[in-house]
Amino acid sequence: MIIDCHGHYTTAPDELETYRDGQIADLELDPMHQSLKGKLGISDDQIRGSLEGAQLKMQAERGTDLTIFSPRASWMGHHVGNASTSSTWTEHCNDLIYRITQLYPDRFVGVAQLPQTPGIAPDNCIGELERCVNELGFIGCNLNPDPSGGYWTDPPLGDRYWYPFFERMCELDVPAMIHVSAACNPCFHTTGSHYLGADTTAFMQMLTSDLLRDFPTIKFIIPHGGGAVPYHWGRFRGLVQAMDKPPLEELVLGNVFFDTCVYHQPGIALLLDVIPAANVLFASELLGAVRGVDPNTGHNFDDTRRYIDASSRATDAEKHLIFSENAKRVYSRMQL
Amino acid sequence: MIIDCHGHYTTAPDELETYRDGQIADLELDPMHQSLKGKLGISDDQIRGSLEGAQLKMQAERGTDLTIFSPRASWMGHHVGNASTSSTWTEHCNDLIYRITQLYPDRFVGVAQLPQTPGIAPDNCIGELERCVNELGFIGCNLNPDPSGGYWTDPPLGDRYWYPFFERMCELDVPAMIHVSAACNPCFHTTGSHYLGADTTAFMQMLTSDLLRDFPTIKFIIPHGGGAVPYHWGRFRGLVQAMDKPPLEELVLGNVFFDTCVYHQPGIALLLDVIPAANVLFASELLGAVRGVDPNTGHNFDDTRRYIDASSRATDAEKHLIFSENAKRVYSRMQL
Repeated sequence: MIIDCHGHYTTAPDELETYRDGQIADLELDPMHQSLKGKLGISDDQIRGSLEGAQLKMQAERGTDLTIFSPRASWMGHHVGNASTSSTWTEHCNDLIYRITQLYPDRFVGVAQLPQTPGIAPDNCIGELERCVNELGFIGCNLNPDPSGGYWTDPPLGDRYWYPFFERMCELDVPAMIHVSAACNPCFHTTGSHYLGADTTAFMQMLTSDLLRDFPTIKFIIPHGGGAVPYHWGRFRGLVQAMDKPPLEELVLGNVFFDTCVYHQPGIALLLDVIPAANVLFASELLGAVRGVDPNTGHNFDDTRRYIDASSRATDAEKHLIFSENAKRVYSRMQL
Repeated sequence: MIIDCHGHYTTAPDELETYRDGQIADLELDPMHQSLKGKLGISDDQIRGSLEGAQLKMQAERGTDLTIFSPRASWMGHHVGNASTSSTWTEHCNDLIYRITQLYPDRFVGVAQLPQTPGIAPDNCIGELERCVNELGFIGCNLNPDPSGGYWTDPPLGDRYWYPFFERMCELDVPAMIHVSAACNPCFHTTGSHYLGADTTAFMQMLTSDLLRDFPTIKFIIPHGGGAVPYHWGRFRGLVQAMDKPPLEELVLGNVFFDTCVYHQPGIALLLDVIPAANVLFASELLGAVRGVDPNTGHNFDDTRRYIDASSRATDAEKHLIFSENAKRVYSRMQL
């Protein structure tokens, strides 16, 4: 069995965008407009149609079985509007994921978007997390360490600002994938620099705070192969040593996991060389950031299974961990 | 001959910090305080003393010959105060580097700090660049893509805001190392996440703009092994392909170079595997971000020469490029 722990619903029917456009139009008239949830008007057939030529087709082509699936990350747009904007938008996005998990229970399991808003403590995301986990059967969430969209105006993850949310994550036993949304700061390219920078930044926030000590059972997945982290593993080892902290491996590997969204063979080689197999989760981010075919290989850049299959860095037993067992362990609410 | 292209004067006598503290005290009384240059009162003997047990000792121990040397990056502090603060501070920092190059002409060659200030176009750095190059014999500069210190409030490098400065760089034929300073945003750790994120961000700004097309002779060094770039080379290749741009190699390798400040063997292996040897410049960032000894190897994390010496990824001819010839080519004003 092969579990892809990082897939987004990037192919939703146009009604979803229309709904969002409506929110934005309301906000243009009144930035404090209080959003009402309303309806999307998307049929089950539309949902099927949006997946069958895309994610489901690629699962079949690539021989992956189950995708841990969440709303489109770049559209979370936590910086748009106010808390009510984020709340109704998030509920709709999560409801769609739930419907997908009901239509294709063997193919998709849900992970929640959170109704974050810059400047508003993530306590207000606990209700939606509980709804998604307890009522919709979701097994994790995507946590945005920078809801401002590239201005980094909220406190770092080690700040107590985040602690009530982390407490509830631990009580529910759900992991969070660290995942920013689209950058509204023109300095950043969403998938090229903002995602990778945020991955590295969040990891460093964990190293410089007591977060992992205060929540010994918390689990985070750092996507996109951990941003710059595995490539600079020696730097991070040296930095925590200089802070008189325990060795990096001891400090983080009980809580922090890395996905395999690294789109070339040498990158995967480095990842598997540096990070123990027990901390690597298979993922492709499909349909995601990079959709083209690599002319050097003739295969999609994001067909990450090929890189792992081809790698001599991991044994078959380690690949089994990476492809399925680690995901079952980290997303412990997953029922297969 | 071994040239280290990335060294900072992190061991300056206390008088430098005292001067800076005086600036900050003046700014606390009046944020618009107009700084007068004044004097540092540092003797040549003090300078010698600050280097002989540190950078010079390490050059000797590690068998490197010449360091391309610039003021302490984390102390550039472009976000502190106003343009006059940055101007006088920068002149003093550069003057110290000049004195070092006069005291040890065979050991150090100068690279300029720039008097950047958030919100002020870098046109106002041209004068100091000219002074450093034409009067002090400097061969390059460190350019901060985020003078705000982690809020990213200035335009991206592809914006015409930066163009007059880039024009002068090209006319003078000096490269810029992309280098942020200390983060004042608590979300970022200066050497752990801000540096690496900025490296990746600046690279992506080059890909999404016309900068390299508009300045075909410009040269940038992305330090810290290019941030996350080589590890995600496939991602960047796919992203530029999706933008209908020329292949990544064609797009950037005439203008963009990467240093070797990657503090473990697997990271250096990845760098040398992915980036052509002609685009890699030896560097150790000493005395820099990570000063400790790696208990796994018994050697300093930042003793990057060892990783390159030990690497089977590069031939001897390629290592010769990396250790000296590339630096001579990129820093073309260097006289040896």
